[in-house]
Formats: sequence, structure tokens, C-alpha cells
Amino acid sequence: MTGTSTETKVSEAQSAALELAKLSEDERNAALHDVADAIESERDRILEANAVDVEEAEARLAEGEYTRALVDRLELSPSKLEDIAEMVRSVAGQDDPLDRTLESRRLDSGLELYKVSVPIGVIGTVFESRPDALVQIAALSLKSGNAVILKGGSEASESNRVLYEIIREATPEVPDGWAQLVEAREDVDTMLGMDDEIDLLMPRGSSAFVSYIQDNTSIPVLGHTEGVCHVFVDREADLEMATEIAYDAKVQYPAVCNAVETLLVHEAVAEEFLPAVAERYREAGVELRGDETARSIVEMDAATESDWSSEYGDLVLSVRVVDSLEAAIDHVNDYGSKHTESIVTEDAGRASTFMRSIDSASVFHNASTRFSDGYRFGLGAEVGISTGKTHARGPVGLEGLTTYKYHLEGSGQIVGTYAGDDAKPFLHEEFEGEWNPGHLRGE
Amino acid sequence: MTGTSTETKVSEAQSAALELAKLSEDERNAALHDVADAIESERDRILEANAVDVEEAEARLAEGEYTRALVDRLELSPSKLEDIAEMVRSVAGQDDPLDRTLESRRLDSGLELYKVSVPIGVIGTVFESRPDALVQIAALSLKSGNAVILKGGSEASESNRVLYEIIREATPEVPDGWAQLVEAREDVDTMLGMDDEIDLLMPRGSSAFVSYIQDNTSIPVLGHTEGVCHVFVDREADLEMATEIAYDAKVQYPAVCNAVETLLVHEAVAEEFLPAVAERYREAGVELRGDETARSIVEMDAATESDWSSEYGDLVLSVRVVDSLEAAIDHVNDYGSKHTESIVTEDAGRASTFMRSIDSASVFHNASTRFSDGYRFGLGAEVGISTGKTHARGPVGLEGLTTYKYHLEGSGQIVGTYAGDDAKPFLHEEFEGEWNPGHLRGE
Repeated sequence: MTGTSTETKVSEAQSAALELAKLSEDERNAALHDVADAIESERDRILEANAVDVEEAEARLAEGEYTRALVDRLELSPSKLEDIAEMVRSVAGQDDPLDRTLESRRLDSGLELYKVSVPIGVIGTVFESRPDALVQIAALSLKSGNAVILKGGSEASESNRVLYEIIREATPEVPDGWAQLVEAREDVDTMLGMDDEIDLLMPRGSSAFVSYIQDNTSIPVLGHTEGVCHVFVDREADLEMATEIAYDAKVQYPAVCNAVETLLVHEAVAEEFLPAVAERYREAGVELRGDETARSIVEMDAATESDWSSEYGDLVLSVRVVDSLEAAIDHVNDYGSKHTESIVTEDAGRASTFMRSIDSASVFHNASTRFSDGYRFGLGAEVGISTGKTHARGPVGLEGLTTYKYHLEGSGQIVGTYAGDDAKPFLHEEFEGEWNPGHLRGE
Repeated sequence: MTGTSTETKVSEAQSAALELAKLSEDERNAALHDVADAIESERDRILEANAVDVEEAEARLAEGEYTRALVDRLELSPSKLEDIAEMVRSVAGQDDPLDRTLESRRLDSGLELYKVSVPIGVIGTVFESRPDALVQIAALSLKSGNAVILKGGSEASESNRVLYEIIREATPEVPDGWAQLVEAREDVDTMLGMDDEIDLLMPRGSSAFVSYIQDNTSIPVLGHTEGVCHVFVDREADLEMATEIAYDAKVQYPAVCNAVETLLVHEAVAEEFLPAVAERYREAGVELRGDETARSIVEMDAATESDWSSEYGDLVLSVRVVDSLEAAIDHVNDYGSKHTESIVTEDAGRASTFMRSIDSASVFHNASTRFSDGYRFGLGAEVGISTGKTHARGPVGLEGLTTYKYHLEGSGQIVGTYAGDDAKPFLHEEFEGEWNPGHLRGE
């Protein structure tokens, strides 16, 4: 056996996490700036490693195994490295997600409870073959005080190894072992069973891959499986607005999870709306697949049952005409993936009904589904988008990599005083204040 | 086949959950008051069913299968029913956990993002054989707008069935199917596999049982496995205070999860502290098990390696003398269950180090571990205590049964405007305001 086992790496990360949680904001930010500087100063070393990956990928492209798009994503350049270094500095510049006092409650005089944000611990990540993904994930983990296990795509293995080495070398002040690289597919399966050591999994990749992870671990998973998003053009819609939104939601970037996959149109406006929007779509090369009513208005292919739950990720759109607001709601709850939906309507009551009745992470009124994104939401660095319903939902910022701890500052209180027949009552009053151990002694 | 399958029940709950999410606070509270009234007016029907359970349990007690404590917990009385009805009214009186605007951010003029609290959806619960548990869990679920699958202990099956019928009968205005009773052990295993339908599991019972649930489902689990809690008496402790806290933490109610199981004592104060506290413990009948140093000071049995990770839940306490603050921290992180720990010290810096270095949900300074409880923390109704690190940690109030949704109010915005070379910048300014669909039209 050469190298360290995955179990050992995870165990080292677990020890490091306890130390990492104690670093100050300044220490974490300084380490991030050191990483950014090292990425710039070690440029040639990174590009050399990347060239090996690219050469291998070009060979596979020639054999038809890889796509040109994959090779393009893989290839680094001096300017891409500059962008990566800037991304790391921008993570350093984010507000600190740690040591925030989320609640302060005086239980009794001299007995104060503080809910304080802290790192989660050890985060296991599996990501796609863009080498900048490794740096981004390591930076987000360090910023939020979490130890991280990094598993990148095998296509980027040389680039990832060198980037990982540079990050470790650049952070001698960070508790050793905070970042760990694993490289084999089997290592992922090992991670899935380590629920006592890994606190959160963040897989990125295809829906099928994220589903596989969720189905094979009891570790909490932060990730999105599918984005089957809807735009509903209500009978009370401003149809010009509806055309712009429906067009933007599909065409502006069709490959992403927040692009619309099914357009629902109220029957009262279908005859006026569909021909206009179909013309715009046709110019952009969008293939439409409709139900019977839609096809009676505009010529298009017939949608099959499987179209309603398909994430095309491409210039394809299914179209359904519904006879009521309720039918639109039922369609979304039946076929959607709880990601992002939008209603276009001038009627506030109908907007409210749609938004309250739909069980999706993001529900919009008169805006494109494409706004569903951590950066656009103003969450700062985006950690990912979650289709899970607990812990973090929808676009997730650094806060999603934190949890909390309760700190209780007392002055010798025992529960016996607050129990039984002569029980002293609790005060339970909220107050503004930061946890500051020992200050009660000064009172 | 008689009766409805578990799959059908869960599916009915899922449909009901979508409707339930739309009930107003007043509607949910009115339903809770109806449940409380029905428990009072149907007193005889409940006591009759309970008598059947108690008779069966008495027979098993005679055969040595059940304990007297179990039979006592099972048995209802008019006054216990009164308490249960009052408990339901107190849940109704809690602040509404739903429809809270958690964040409001203006992305751009006329484009407003609201993060709003909403129910999680379908909660699967498995609980112990106290019949009041069914009512409490149903009440918490209804208050928080969640549909609920109820699986109680078989010892209470007659009581549970009647209580369930009464709750369903008393809530005709609540979407039908919101509460579902399942009764067989196999139904639990069916639930564990329904990760597309059940959003959260809340098991109560032994640590082994909760661990079994966690290991056999990919549904998020809210519950605590073990409570191996520690009190550390530092070299800078006020020893009288330390004695009171150590005594209260063990003796005040030894059967609960927040009772102390291991007492750690700094060697600098061990010779003075241990004899005094041991005398108090001896009077209360506490059995001590110590390491070598502890036994050289006070006579007690020897602790074995397994003692350090044991949750006795009884008048038994392991005692270890440590030579430093760091040794105490390492012991807690190695052997603890991330539940609740307390340091007794007059030194604020040492308190801070202990509290920051320990990876537990609740870490206290100069207070008994027994304060770790939703009621004492002022969280209102306690949903449970979580030893998980994501979603909810430590004592959990009604907030733990909620998640959030993003509502975006726009006026026709598309992402194309904010992308590319001429991209309009976002404002991203926080503001105070509640989501109110359609108000942008009035601007």
C-alpha cells in the first residue's frame, strides 16, 4: 500500500476541524490571501500539471470519449488562474459567518444563554472536473472554519494534485490536515459510510450522481438533484412581460438548473400568448413539445408523459395549457423538483395563492426563474443550491456551512432551584449582547 | 387486506401537507383548542381504552415482562387528561413559527427577495408508550403546519387509537389526512424507505433505537442518540459552586439525557474537591467509578475504558482526574456524545478555551448540565433534543419543524439585464418589510 488510506485522511481532518474552529477571522482571511498569492506565484507549476491533464483529455477527445466542452472547462490559462486567485480573495472579503450571536436570552439574573454560529466540522465534497472547483470549495471551507475532504474528477487529477499541494503549502498556520485530497472512485464509497466522522456531504455533478450519494449514505447531503423549473403565465398576466420572462428563463443560459423546463399557460390567454412567444423561441432555436391544446394553437411536437418531469438542460421546452390556477399548482407540485417556479400575473391574490401553494425552495412573481442563484440573491459566495428541505434550502451561502452552539454563562445555578414546589420562575427575556465569558463576575 | 397500507397513509399525508401549509395561524390555533376540548369531553372514552392497555400491561408486569414504571407511565387519569388538554392549549398559545419574514433584500428597484418560514411537510414520528406523547406530537405538528405520521408503542395501542380518532374527529377544518396512525413495527421500516414522501423523522426512545433509525434511512433525522455529558471542575473553580453543580447535574434527575455521566477534576484541586463531593454523592446513593488518581483520594470502584462512554441514566458516575484543561477538552471530544458539557471555573480565559474547543451542542460555564432543555432555554414547546449538527442542534423548539422558502417579487425582471458586458449591477440592500405580493404595482 502506498499513500494514506481514506479513513486516515478523514480522521486527520476530524482532528484538524476541532483546532480550525478556534482560528480567528483574521487568521482565516490571512490564510486565504496566502492561498491566492501562491496560486499566482506558482503559476507555471500549475499550468505544467494542467497541460498533462489537457493532453490526456485531447487524446480521449480524439477517441470520442470526451467532448470539446469538457476539454475547454479543464484547460487553465494565466488569465483563468488570475480569476481563481481573485475568487479566493473575494471569499476572504465576505462577512464572517462564524462567531455570530444569533440569539441572546436571559434565563434568570446572572444566567445568560447565547446561540453562536460555529463551523459544522468535516465536509466531504465531490465535484466536477473544472480545476477551479477544488480551489473554490477549499476556500469556502476555510472561510467557514470547516475541514474538507476534496474529491475531484479524474480528468483533472494532475491539476487537482498540484493545486491541493499549493493550498496546503500556503497554509502552514492552519491546523495541519484541514484539507485532504482523495482521488479514487472507491474513496467516495468509503466516505459515504463514515457518518461518525463526516458531518456534511456536498456533491456536485449530475442529478443521477447526487441521487446516488443521497441514496447511499446517512450523512446529511447538501446538493440539488434536479431543476425541473416552471413558468406559469396566468390569465391575468401582462403578456409582453410574460414573453420576456419565458424567453429569458429558457434561452439566457439553458444548461443550468434554474432554467425553465415547462411553460404552463392559462387557457384564457393561450391563443394570444403562445404564437408570440413561440416565434421568439423559434428564432433562438428552442424546440417546443406541447400538449394537445398547445399544438392546436402552435405547431410543435407532442409532449409525452416523461417530458413533464424532464430536466432538458438544453434548448427544449415542454408547453402545457391549463384551465385554472389550481391546475397549474397541481402540475408543479406533481412534476416539479421543488427548485424554482415563477408566476406571471397582475393579480396579487392569484400570485399569493400560487406562491403559498407550491412546495418549492424558490417561488417568484413576475421575474425569471434564472434569478435563483446565490450571487443574484445577494448571499455572497454560493456554496451550492439545495433541493433538500432541512438545514439549507435553495441557493446556499456560507451560512449553510455553519451550525450553532449554545453557550450558557452562569454564576453557579443549579436546576434544583427552578424545579419542584418552590420553583423559581425563569425570566426568559431576549436581550442584545454578545457572548463574553466571565463578564457576570464583574456584575 | 384490512386497513389502509402505510404507503397510502403517507401519500395521504403528503397531499394534506400541501393544503395544511395554507392554513392561517388562527385556523391552526382554533383546531388545537378543539382538540383540547375534545380530550376533555371524550374523557370516559379515552379512559376506557386506556384501561384495556393497562390491564394487559399489568398482566405482563405479573409475568415479569414489564416494569412497574412502564405501567405507571401508561396509565391515564382524569387529572392527567386535564394536563394533556392544557398542554395542547399551551402549544396553541406559542408564537407562530410560520410566515415569519426571516430576511428581506432588495436585489434591485422593484425586485424584492423575502425569506419566509414555512412548514417542512411530512414528519414521521416514532415515540414511547406514554399516551400523552401522541397528543403532544400531533399538537406540535399541527401548530407548525406539518402533516404527521404517528407510530406509538404497542403497549399503548388502544389509548393511541382512541386519542388519534378523537384528534381527527375534532379537526374537520384541517385538511383531511393531516395526521395518520400506523401501528405495526414493520410500518416503521416502510417509513424509513419513503424518502421521497417523508421530509423529516423524529424518533424518540432509546439511543440504540434512534441509531437504528439513522443507520437505516436517508431521510433527515431529528433526535438524540446519547447524552454522555461532562462536568469539568477546573483548577480555578469555586469548589463550593462546583459541588452544587456536580451534585445537581447527577442527582436532580439521573434518568435524563442531560444528566452528567463523567466528572472531570483538575489535579490541582482534586484532593480538596473530591472528598467533599463524594460525601454528598454517597448520601444520595450515587455509585462512583474512578480512575487511579481519583481512587487514591476517595475510595470507589475502578472505572474501565467502557465507563468513559457510558450513558448510565442512573445514580452512577465516572470520575477522572486530569492534569490540564487540554486533557479535559480531549477527554470530552474523545468520549462525549456532543450533547452538553459544563466547566466550573473563575477564570474567563479558561472558560472560553473550553467552550470554544468542545464540539457539543451545549457548552456551559458555571451552570448545571441539566439546564439543557427547550423549556429552560425559553424555546417554548420542546420538539426534541438533537445530537445531529445540521438543521437543528441541541434543544429544539417549534422552529425546528420549519424550513424556509424564497419569495421573489418582481415587476418583469429578466436575468439578461444583469448579465454580460452591459450588466446592470444589483443593489443587494437589506430592508425591513414583510412579503406582500403585488405591492410593487402600487409604487
